[in-house]
Amino acid sequence: MDQTDRPDSQDLIPEDKPASQSGRRTFLQRSSAGLAAALATGAAGTAWAAGPPAAAANSVKLPLIADPRTEQKEETPDANLPPDDRIGYAIVGLGHLALDQILPALSNCKYSRVAALVSGDRNKALKIAHQYGVREADIYDYQSFERLADNSRVQVVYIVLPNGMHKEFTLRAAKIGKHVLCEKPMATSVADCQAMIDACSKNNRKLMVAYRSQYEPMDRMIAKMAKENKLGPLREFIAGNSQNQSGPSQWRLNKALAGGGALPDIGLYALNAARFFSGEEPYEVSASLTQPAADPRFKEVEESVHFIMRFPSGFTATCMASYGCHESRFFRLQGTDGWAEMDPAFGYNGLRMRYGMLVDGKSANTEITIDPNNQFAREIDHMSLCVINDKIPHTPGEEGLQDQRIMEAIYESARTARVVKISKPQASTRGPDPEEETF
Amino acid sequence: MDQTDRPDSQDLIPEDKPASQSGRRTFLQRSSAGLAAALATGAAGTAWAAGPPAAAANSVKLPLIADPRTEQKEETPDANLPPDDRIGYAIVGLGHLALDQILPALSNCKYSRVAALVSGDRNKALKIAHQYGVREADIYDYQSFERLADNSRVQVVYIVLPNGMHKEFTLRAAKIGKHVLCEKPMATSVADCQAMIDACSKNNRKLMVAYRSQYEPMDRMIAKMAKENKLGPLREFIAGNSQNQSGPSQWRLNKALAGGGALPDIGLYALNAARFFSGEEPYEVSASLTQPAADPRFKEVEESVHFIMRFPSGFTATCMASYGCHESRFFRLQGTDGWAEMDPAFGYNGLRMRYGMLVDGKSANTEITIDPNNQFAREIDHMSLCVINDKIPHTPGEEGLQDQRIMEAIYESARTARVVKISKPQASTRGPDPEEETF
Amino acid sequence: MDQTDRPDSQDLIPEDKPASQSGRRTFLQRSSAGLAAALATGAAGTAWAAGPPAAAANSVKLPLIADPRTEQKEETPDANLPPDDRIGYAIVGLGHLALDQILPALSNCKYSRVAALVSGDRNKALKIAHQYGVREADIYDYQSFERLADNSRVQVVYIVLPNGMHKEFTLRAAKIGKHVLCEKPMATSVADCQAMIDACSKNNRKLMVAYRSQYEPMDRMIAKMAKENKLGPLREFIAGNSQNQSGPSQWRLNKALAGGGALPDIGLYALNAARFFSGEEPYEVSASLTQPAADPRFKEVEESVHFIMRFPSGFTATCMASYGCHESRFFRLQGTDGWAEMDPAFGYNGLRMRYGMLVDGKSANTEITIDPNNQFAREIDHMSLCVINDKIPHTPGEEGLQDQRIMEAIYESARTARVVKISKPQASTRGPDPEEETF
Amino acid sequence: MDQTDRPDSQDLIPEDKPASQSGRRTFLQRSSAGLAAALATGAAGTAWAAGPPAAAANSVKLPLIADPRTEQKEETPDANLPPDDRIGYAIVGLGHLALDQILPALSNCKYSRVAALVSGDRNKALKIAHQYGVREADIYDYQSFERLADNSRVQVVYIVLPNGMHKEFTLRAAKIGKHVLCEKPMATSVADCQAMIDACSKNNRKLMVAYRSQYEPMDRMIAKMAKENKLGPLREFIAGNSQNQSGPSQWRLNKALAGGGALPDIGLYALNAARFFSGEEPYEVSASLTQPAADPRFKEVEESVHFIMRFPSGFTATCMASYGCHESRFFRLQGTDGWAEMDPAFGYNGLRMRYGMLVDGKSANTEITIDPNNQFAREIDHMSLCVINDKIPHTPGEEGLQDQRIMEAIYESARTARVVKISKPQASTRGPDPEEETF
Repeated sequence: MDQTDRPDSQDLIPEDKPASQSGRRTFLQRSSAGLAAALATGAAGTAWAAGPPAAAANSVKLPLIADPRTEQKEETPDANLPPDDRIGYAIVGLGHLALDQILPALSNCKYSRVAALVSGDRNKALKIAHQYGVREADIYDYQSFERLADNSRVQVVYIVLPNGMHKEFTLRAAKIGKHVLCEKPMATSVADCQAMIDACSKNNRKLMVAYRSQYEPMDRMIAKMAKENKLGPLREFIAGNSQNQSGPSQWRLNKALAGGGALPDIGLYALNAARFFSGEEPYEVSASLTQPAADPRFKEVEESVHFIMRFPSGFTATCMASYGCHESRFFRLQGTDGWAEMDPAFGYNGLRMRYGMLVDGKSANTEITIDPNNQFAREIDHMSLCVINDKIPHTPGEEGLQDQRIMEAIYESARTARVVKISKPQASTRGPDPEEETF
Repeated sequence: MDQTDRPDSQDLIPEDKPASQSGRRTFLQRSSAGLAAALATGAAGTAWAAGPPAAAANSVKLPLIADPRTEQKEETPDANLPPDDRIGYAIVGLGHLALDQILPALSNCKYSRVAALVSGDRNKALKIAHQYGVREADIYDYQSFERLADNSRVQVVYIVLPNGMHKEFTLRAAKIGKHVLCEKPMATSVADCQAMIDACSKNNRKLMVAYRSQYEPMDRMIAKMAKENKLGPLREFIAGNSQNQSGPSQWRLNKALAGGGALPDIGLYALNAARFFSGEEPYEVSASLTQPAADPRFKEVEESVHFIMRFPSGFTATCMASYGCHESRFFRLQGTDGWAEMDPAFGYNGLRMRYGMLVDGKSANTEITIDPNNQFAREIDHMSLCVINDKIPHTPGEEGLQDQRIMEAIYESARTARVVKISKPQASTRGPDPEEETF
Repeated sequence: MDQTDRPDSQDLIPEDKPASQSGRRTFLQRSSAGLAAALATGAAGTAWAAGPPAAAANSVKLPLIADPRTEQKEETPDANLPPDDRIGYAIVGLGHLALDQILPALSNCKYSRVAALVSGDRNKALKIAHQYGVREADIYDYQSFERLADNSRVQVVYIVLPNGMHKEFTLRAAKIGKHVLCEKPMATSVADCQAMIDACSKNNRKLMVAYRSQYEPMDRMIAKMAKENKLGPLREFIAGNSQNQSGPSQWRLNKALAGGGALPDIGLYALNAARFFSGEEPYEVSASLTQPAADPRFKEVEESVHFIMRFPSGFTATCMASYGCHESRFFRLQGTDGWAEMDPAFGYNGLRMRYGMLVDGKSANTEITIDPNNQFAREIDHMSLCVINDKIPHTPGEEGLQDQRIMEAIYESARTARVVKISKPQASTRGPDPEEETF
Repeated sequence: MDQTDRPDSQDLIPEDKPASQSGRRTFLQRSSAGLAAALATGAAGTAWAAGPPAAAANSVKLPLIADPRTEQKEETPDANLPPDDRIGYAIVGLGHLALDQILPALSNCKYSRVAALVSGDRNKALKIAHQYGVREADIYDYQSFERLADNSRVQVVYIVLPNGMHKEFTLRAAKIGKHVLCEKPMATSVADCQAMIDACSKNNRKLMVAYRSQYEPMDRMIAKMAKENKLGPLREFIAGNSQNQSGPSQWRLNKALAGGGALPDIGLYALNAARFFSGEEPYEVSASLTQPAADPRFKEVEESVHFIMRFPSGFTATCMASYGCHESRFFRLQGTDGWAEMDPAFGYNGLRMRYGMLVDGKSANTEITIDPNNQFAREIDHMSLCVINDKIPHTPGEEGLQDQRIMEAIYESARTARVVKISKPQASTRGPDPEEETF
């Protein structure tokens, strides 16, 4: 800020501004030099390394303003794809997440747009469609889901249903030739996860699990610090993810629909983050569950889970998740030479990151300010770019399957009061890093 | 978070879920009771007190989930107006602010949409139009501006041009019957501000100055704390707003186009905040300017300004703004019993607020987490609601005029090395508070 | 601050200051009223509820200055006991802790003083004695320890030796009639802890374990918040305590001397805090250890420990401690309605505490500023007051014994890869709360 | 932490510990190498560059423990001077500052001790003397002050009286051959400051003004950052120092005794900091005062002061101080490339510092954790080392005189509503930097 109301010079009416005219010339000369320099050094984070050529050709890039001290704030936005060229999504399930987060996020996307709604409540769907400019013809119900096959405006089905229904709709979507973006947790059993992977593979459709944090820039910066050994060898990860879960009639407290309680819903963030940051897979886990008999919310699922995951290098993750506490979400990733944390972590907004290490022999904590923008938009646009560029998503079905395997080991450990071993996945569970232009 | 992927019960296919069926019934009964209670107590910040009836009727409100501990997080979003019913804006000037902030913000609006572009560079305008789904027919240049008169899709002209051009385009807009939303500072002289007010008044058009911070929720919370005497009588305000201004060919460093340097661009935030929080008008000011001869950026305008504004109650504002420093933006509002601050303040994102007071006799600093959402969207939607509901904007032309009067006194004080008196405006410079539904 | 250089009025020379003379009269009248009011409401945290009468009689209390807004800052210091009346300590072991923390802390004590030194290195002891004004006659070595029996200036022996030597010196001290303040961990086995308790009991001597955090004001405030249900029912505790341990020849890495690695040294803080804040005793624990073969520091003891302790109410503690990470010390105590944390926690200085809860329906984090003063001085003065007033210390031997029992269960769980049960102690392990005058 | 209870190996009884015996040898070898390296690089902040040889010879330095990752925490404390060898202080005036801060701080000093008390209230003095081990013979009253001449245990007189009495007692002290440490502000007029300087000079006595912040390590680190150009050229300083002043009979509200209100007491911190950090002297100032007629506290002195000081380089300080607000103390020093702040600043404890700059092109705020220890002890020990080593204090009388000159210009500006010029001091107002061993 405040590079506010700053039209570039071309917008000024030449006749009125002879003085600024000559000023403009100098400006443009310097600017283009600055732009070239920035591109040469890679300083401009917005260069189109691998983006869609059509979009690149159409993008308007304001010349970088030349003072190097402010240059970083002068980045111009990546070009949006024209609305009609964007990847179209059918949103399946119009609950809170879809209404409060995903539909608004689609307005922030560059490569994605809402193209259809699938809901069991036509009345509600009509109203939502009206608000978001979706045509009545693009509303479906669960029975008529397969009619999406004929809707060429829809390339991706975004499944925002209860966990227990993810498998069914992934299979149905793959069968009618649609790519699938599926909310986390991927499903409620290893078998279902495998079936989902197989169905998309057989139909040659992309399958991505919506691990939002892996697309969030602070999380990504921490992963990068870890990879570049900025924290020294990683030794410990400690995380807590807690909220007061509403209930008791919430589907999240219904075991058949949710697959479990705090673990698959919010504990999964800690579990996945430990794997993401370390790049390792755990070989054993010990865990306990709390399920208070007196609380009507926890008739079927756990209130809280506590687990210790051990990794081959000696790195260990000590995690907790609870449906029974005032909101608290954080993690700290610890290496021999420093730590990085997010607090709040995992949430939709208000995230913060800092790291601690020695600076000139003194204990220093540094907070980096990154505008997180809309995490959902980044995630959805990544899926769209995978479709556009025919790439494997960064968080494909294999990533969700591996987490499901670990969650089943956690439940087994809690049930048997013993450490439980976890076998290694046969291959990496992640696709290539998200394209920078998503960011 | 993580009230994630939670479709409401209606989305579940009844045939498959007999158990959840009965669960759902209980759920809805409890929910509607909860909703009624929330409405009765005014706890739901989203009730449509004064909103457009059509929108209210169409909005989909998910039932509030009943656990009181999480209820506050369960608020459903206010309904968007259907795209075709929204207020249409012509964006005049396609510089950084328009491209980086305003056009993306319009995607987040509920009552507003981009309807036309006005630019001196048709090529650029075409590309932007393409990205945002604006029709080619809705692109104008400065000469053909008056043709907007015939475009019934455009109700408001949003002027995002250099300060020195605000007057001209406000007059031209008013003349063709369009409402005006004008970036701050309003203009470059008191006379121009008055002419703008007069033109809109004569043509019975609304005129709003884009004092974004007055629509930002943390600023508004601080204003409310002050009004409710939570800080005790206000005594002092201290603020700094600094950045490294790019240059030297930037129009902001051109006196004719910008009207001044750091003062009208960024010092204005501090000046306006002191007036907004206190609800008072200053009666005198002393000030100094820095304009280093050796810096090519500051041939025409000041690098920095320092000013002390005194108010009738004894409240005093001590402010600084600089174009020559690493980014630093903050204010602290101090009363006898507490203080409230924002740091960062004034910016587009990453804002934080906290207050300090005694709690149980101990010194306590409290940070409130409010999702700031998109400040520009709030601001623009306020203008749209003023048009829909025929109300005076919260920050009308009179607010901009008064700031201009004070800025001229600041320049006079710096020039004469003396305290300069400021006469009181004849009436309140502000319209009614923004409607809650903007938030 | 800055109630700086403010002598009270009596210090002013009357002849010179007739005006202030009359001012003083008013001042004293108002002050004494203020003082009475403060005492009546208990607002003055410095009232001598149970202190030594001699000290109270001698204390100089400046009259409270009357403006209620600053009164809390006007508290006068509690009176020191005259040096010769203070409880005398023999410091046994002149390592880092004794030299860097304990001896300087004794200068800050009100009721305690250093009276003797016990060291195996007479040369070093002589130099230290010289610096702290200890007489040469008051220097002892380990063989001549029993000669302390004849030194009437020494009432308490403060054992600052390696853990494996705590038992021997506690027994020798009790035998010669001295009270014992013993560093944590209390010893290296349950049997040794019990022997220490028995020896002091038999000789009618007091035994206190130096659980410093239980005397630290922020920890105490959090315990009070928990007790008063400010956080709602407690559900979770999560803590990490990490540092890069020097080595490999450090006695702390020698199993016989230290009893273990990260667990008894730094994991103990987390373990003890979970018990202290909840007021509950755990009934089972699961745990894992990391002991990397390649690191020469960890030939005998663990690098890190991870443990989950479960408590009868459903409260659970998820903890980690590591000797292999950059310094990181924190805990978060979570209830249904709020959380409280310290970060940094456990350390000698720089501690911070904040709590999170809803305020007016908004998420708020509040930091309380409490001057921690010298934690060691508070702790030592508590022991002195227990001696003066013949009271049981707040953290007697039983507190250390219980932690030792739990640590042995943690090691067993790690060894067997199973959950291990812990029986309940027969009685409360803690004495009365520390007297307020320590603070 | 927790390098707790770690006696060095010599403390272990050799007979019992043959293994640790050999371990010790290795340990010492490695340690001395580490120590040498540390000294060579200057990393050890504790090396005795210029300290008293006697003290150095007697100091006990524990060998540095060898792991470089923890080495910085292993610093051993500098040696105290033996109590009888320390510089003796007569404390003149037993008000709040003396009782709450200075007398306790003397217990933390290494080179200083309390040797005498001077008070108008013998009864109070007797009690305080008793608590601090001062002999009855070492108590004086204002009339008998000159008898201190015969007290060879007293080398320095520390004047903690109302500002208006500083001159008289400085002159009396110099006359009887005592060095003077005088609280800030130095006096109440330029003439008095000059008389104090002259008196000490004539009697060849040292005169130091107690500018505590110039001895505080965070302030010093910021001064060093500025000097090393870490923030780029300095451009702006903004500071506020506020508290609710008690009254109305407080001597601080009495113009004759205090010399003024908020300005000399708390505004002086901001004024002095701007000079200290920039190393420049202001050439002009504009200012305003607030003195509300209705507040009985401000019959004689100002409630608040606001001033803008301009420096030759273009650096400007915008400052505010108020006796009428909830406590708020901060400053931010801004350069072209970064800023550094303290918040809280100026106070006795709880200080924090952080700086903001770009790190890898991202906005980063870094907090440095430095244990501030006791600022008063550092300050007093600096005076003692100046006496021991016969050096000019870092903040001699000239420093206080220059601030007094500026304060008089501030009052003149407020009175005349004009900018007031300030002439340059003839020479630097500061002595050499404080010796490192004070820290």
